Amino acid sequence: MTAVPEPATTPPDAHAAAGHPDRGHATAGRLDGGPLDVVGMGNALVDVLAAVPDRVLDDLSLVRGSMELVDLARAERIYAAIGSAVEVSGGSAANTVSGVAALGGTAGFIGKVADDDMGKVFVHDMRACGVELEAAVADADEGEAEVRGTGRSFVLVTGDAERTMATHLGVSAILGPGDVRDELVARAGILYLEGYLWDRPSAKEAMRRAVKTAHDHDSSVALSLSDSFCVDRHRSEFLDLVVNEIDVLFGNEEELRSLFSARSLDDALSSAGETGVLVAATCGPKGSIVVGGRGPVEVPAAPATQIVDKTGAGDMYASGFLYGLTHGHDPVDSARLGSLCAAEVIGHLGARPQRDVAVMARAEGLA
Amino acid sequence: MTAVPEPATTPPDAHAAAGHPDRGHATAGRLDGGPLDVVGMGNALVDVLAAVPDRVLDDLSLVRGSMELVDLARAERIYAAIGSAVEVSGGSAANTVSGVAALGGTAGFIGKVADDDMGKVFVHDMRACGVELEAAVADADEGEAEVRGTGRSFVLVTGDAERTMATHLGVSAILGPGDVRDELVARAGILYLEGYLWDRPSAKEAMRRAVKTAHDHDSSVALSLSDSFCVDRHRSEFLDLVVNEIDVLFGNEEELRSLFSARSLDDALSSAGETGVLVAATCGPKGSIVVGGRGPVEVPAAPATQIVDKTGAGDMYASGFLYGLTHGHDPVDSARLGSLCAAEVIGHLGARPQRDVAVMARAEGLA
Repeated sequence: MTAVPEPATTPPDAHAAAGHPDRGHATAGRLDGGPLDVVGMGNALVDVLAAVPDRVLDDLSLVRGSMELVDLARAERIYAAIGSAVEVSGGSAANTVSGVAALGGTAGFIGKVADDDMGKVFVHDMRACGVELEAAVADADEGEAEVRGTGRSFVLVTGDAERTMATHLGVSAILGPGDVRDELVARAGILYLEGYLWDRPSAKEAMRRAVKTAHDHDSSVALSLSDSFCVDRHRSEFLDLVVNEIDVLFGNEEELRSLFSARSLDDALSSAGETGVLVAATCGPKGSIVVGGRGPVEVPAAPATQIVDKTGAGDMYASGFLYGLTHGHDPVDSARLGSLCAAEVIGHLGARPQRDVAVMARAEGLA
Repeated sequence: MTAVPEPATTPPDAHAAAGHPDRGHATAGRLDGGPLDVVGMGNALVDVLAAVPDRVLDDLSLVRGSMELVDLARAERIYAAIGSAVEVSGGSAANTVSGVAALGGTAGFIGKVADDDMGKVFVHDMRACGVELEAAVADADEGEAEVRGTGRSFVLVTGDAERTMATHLGVSAILGPGDVRDELVARAGILYLEGYLWDRPSAKEAMRRAVKTAHDHDSSVALSLSDSFCVDRHRSEFLDLVVNEIDVLFGNEEELRSLFSARSLDDALSSAGETGVLVAATCGPKGSIVVGGRGPVEVPAAPATQIVDKTGAGDMYASGFLYGLTHGHDPVDSARLGSLCAAEVIGHLGARPQRDVAVMARAEGLA
């Protein structure tokens, strides 16, 4: 375990030599075995986005701002209750690595899709933004009927731009250690894991395998706590993981307070500081706080021109932060880049960047 | 054939009594056999929207602003060449009837989907906006491999908000007369057909059957010319159809000039006037021209706050026009309502309305 990840050793020229595709028009995202700044592992999901009135959340017994796992029957009830929707690739860690690629970094992803339309959409969109993809495709008869399709996440956006998610994992539920391609992990400057994976025993084993491989190859390991309810469910295991295996930790106030059983964010940050882990605490409109080395440093949020949909704000913050760390920036400048990316993604519907974040980063001297 | 359709005989109370669902949160769009303002028939498609640089159109040999039918191999080449995309229900006539429903009208649709993710998305989105749906679901082994999936249309939006479309019809290609539920057509105030259907022999037969049923039940018949290349391909047949079967005709300048082999729009409108058909000629930013009864009347475009994506402008113009005709408005006020709807849809990505067009219409005294 290294306290702060080293900058990636891949110079820009190496990316070009390896055929790094133009952003947005890749046939590929295949880098032929070169180093990757960030490799993410997480649920491969297609987001089903719909604007809903507040009362729909009540009707569906969904908790505003949270992510809840739902079974197939509940997923169908939710779909029947919402209006016309838009389908767009999502998944927390998948969003983050696509953001790293959008910034001009090199990225890979490990996840599981089914051989259906949504699986094809997910794979297309990852490759199109230049992410090297190791998506295990589930056999048509693998798993119970419950898990047969590509996973999807209903993202219900209310008038205040808050998003409430209900995720039916589909075949993501059977992501297991056999789906982890060690070779991809070994090439990562940073392995990035979403906490959501901890909810499924086989995905947890996949995470453990990937973490071991990363350590064996001197890759750093980053973890997003994902959701305070997820942390509640697995507090002691997460704490053990963070202290012993993790180099970089992302979480918001609720998640960090839950992890450290702390009464306040300050108390949580104090406990976080004692772990020696580099912690990026996201605080919504107030920005973020970086803990590690020099003690807590507050980094203001980047100005947002408009707030349409908060989906992906945390994911894109992680994109900027990880891109920064792997491109020679210190944690505070990395946090500034994270804020810039988060401000872009909340300005429109959908969790992946629509503007050229690499250009935005250069304009701020953060490329 | 009636020169101008009569207003629908369904009073608002009848809609309520029949359980007309709240817009956007219908479980259904089932009106239990009551009259319908507009029943559309067309290709059931999911749009795959992507912003692309101009050069991508050249690379793919696509003609800017046109719609081209592509086979499966070409569809796959196009998909591989574009960046991350957004999937949203589309199809010209499907967009139009969803717009009629969004305005508070009653609407039905006849089309053909496959039993796959995209077919489910299409059916969900139509029902969610309150459209009564008669979507024939193709058997998994119906048709050649070429036509096995739900149809999709690549909508490539360039920086000037122009859209260029490449459509792989999938199972829409085998829509046939057996898929027309006469009972649905018989309940229509206006049967609305998209010219695109004329490209496939079986769909053409389906159109002929629906037209006959409509006439047998004193329903009016409206036709959108869809695309000037489509008109070029079928000029004499379209002309025969318009003169003998159609009550309301929608077309833009290129389409109408092609249909009437006219050197100018004025010449085309003069020829159109001689047919006795009510013609709504759409002229982009200049608005539209209504021909019928009182001779050509120019109706200005509604002010658009921004122009993001012109996809669906013609479809939504037809929504407003048909809603107007079936709710007691004269053709000129119906054209004003059409312009209002078109202005809404070009303000965002996607071909279906996102703002409450019924509220917008009431604000203009056009509900």
